[in-house]
Amino acid sequence: MSHLVLIRHGQSEWNAANRFNGWIDTQLSPTGIKQAQAAGQALKEEGLAFDAAYSSALSRTIMTIDEVLTTLGQLYVPQTKTWRLNERHYGSLQGENKDAMFAKYGHDQVQIWRRSYEILPPKIHVFEPEVTIDGKRYPAFDRRYNKLKYGQLPVSENIQSTVKRVLPLWQKNIRPELEAGKNILIVAHGTSVRALTKIIEGTAPADIVKLEIPNAEPIVYNFDNKLNILNKKVLKQKSL
Amino acid sequence: MSHLVLIRHGQSEWNAANRFNGWIDTQLSPTGIKQAQAAGQALKEEGLAFDAAYSSALSRTIMTIDEVLTTLGQLYVPQTKTWRLNERHYGSLQGENKDAMFAKYGHDQVQIWRRSYEILPPKIHVFEPEVTIDGKRYPAFDRRYNKLKYGQLPVSENIQSTVKRVLPLWQKNIRPELEAGKNILIVAHGTSVRALTKIIEGTAPADIVKLEIPNAEPIVYNFDNKLNILNKKVLKQKSL
Repeated sequence: MSHLVLIRHGQSEWNAANRFNGWIDTQLSPTGIKQAQAAGQALKEEGLAFDAAYSSALSRTIMTIDEVLTTLGQLYVPQTKTWRLNERHYGSLQGENKDAMFAKYGHDQVQIWRRSYEILPPKIHVFEPEVTIDGKRYPAFDRRYNKLKYGQLPVSENIQSTVKRVLPLWQKNIRPELEAGKNILIVAHGTSVRALTKIIEGTAPADIVKLEIPNAEPIVYNFDNKLNILNKKVLKQKSL
Repeated sequence: MSHLVLIRHGQSEWNAANRFNGWIDTQLSPTGIKQAQAAGQALKEEGLAFDAAYSSALSRTIMTIDEVLTTLGQLYVPQTKTWRLNERHYGSLQGENKDAMFAKYGHDQVQIWRRSYEILPPKIHVFEPEVTIDGKRYPAFDRRYNKLKYGQLPVSENIQSTVKRVLPLWQKNIRPELEAGKNILIVAHGTSVRALTKIIEGTAPADIVKLEIPNAEPIVYNFDNKLNILNKKVLKQKSL
């Protein structure tokens, strides 16, 4: 018996501003911090305790995990920050306002880029090192990705390619820990949570593209020791 | 060339309440949070960037590191939480008010327990699983120490025994990383910072017992690639 809790980070500044976020490292909004604390409180009421925690390499999941573990009184849980759980890379859409992109490319085209399983959004150019939004510079990549090998850094991703980079983390780290009876907390992003859902539940591409993942609502899986799902429940956010 | 920054955590609730803290897992006080942010700001002004961060398994160092990395904009730095950096275990003095212990045992005796290099404070009894302070229960040990081997869990520590348990972390992890040119951030406690100072600088026992380590003042070491100290400076807290 083990449990796995999957959480999409709390609301980010750019969720609030209706911008494509991707790998750009925005912070939680004040609402996002409250949502993360509420998620921690919901897990506390379930009496859950964790042996390991995973986040992406982006601040919005790390801030969320810190708030969750603080609320749980379990700040000591070992914590791994990995690019494999990053949000999908949104290519040259990163930083753009969603409505502006609807106006520029048409609603249907943008929805295809947002939700297609295998079509890629427009790639960022390899010499496009940063975007400037509201006078602030956001690097496309930085030293946190120094250890990645050539070919691992994406220039654009869809759900399919996100599944592909999440899978080694599942196979090498998370699955063996769950099989050993450990309880795991993962805080990730809309698309990386979809990718994990597909890996765990075997969801078909046609269904996974339609799956909505609200901010900071813990998805709690209980597994037997062969990793069959005994039950799954979602701890809803009460309105803040 | 590499740098190492050593920080004692910000003021804890029990620093503020004049209690012996040891391995009991108290939180930062509101002042402690501000001190940690100020330490982060001082490091930012120095232009320092880190490749790895280490804290103890206790919340007051983890909270401090989170505030420091948030202020630096480097939340993504890989973070290890280890019991080897815990505060010295204060035996049966843990949770007690310092003035009450002065009154009970005499000032000289308590000062010997606080500052002697090799005399141990009174041990906790192995069947003493928790202390109750102000109506709140604090466990002596909990699941975060599950992986420790028999004999590793202390019942009382002095500076000497703290040096002994910090040393393997230095030798196996921190020293090789510094030799490889990595920049390291360590947030620890009064006695574990003293222990690291002794290991790094070879300070004599008679001097290390007198060394005062204020809360949240970064000690910045620059090393050459043979780990000779090129320079050392302390970034003082301005009054908050």
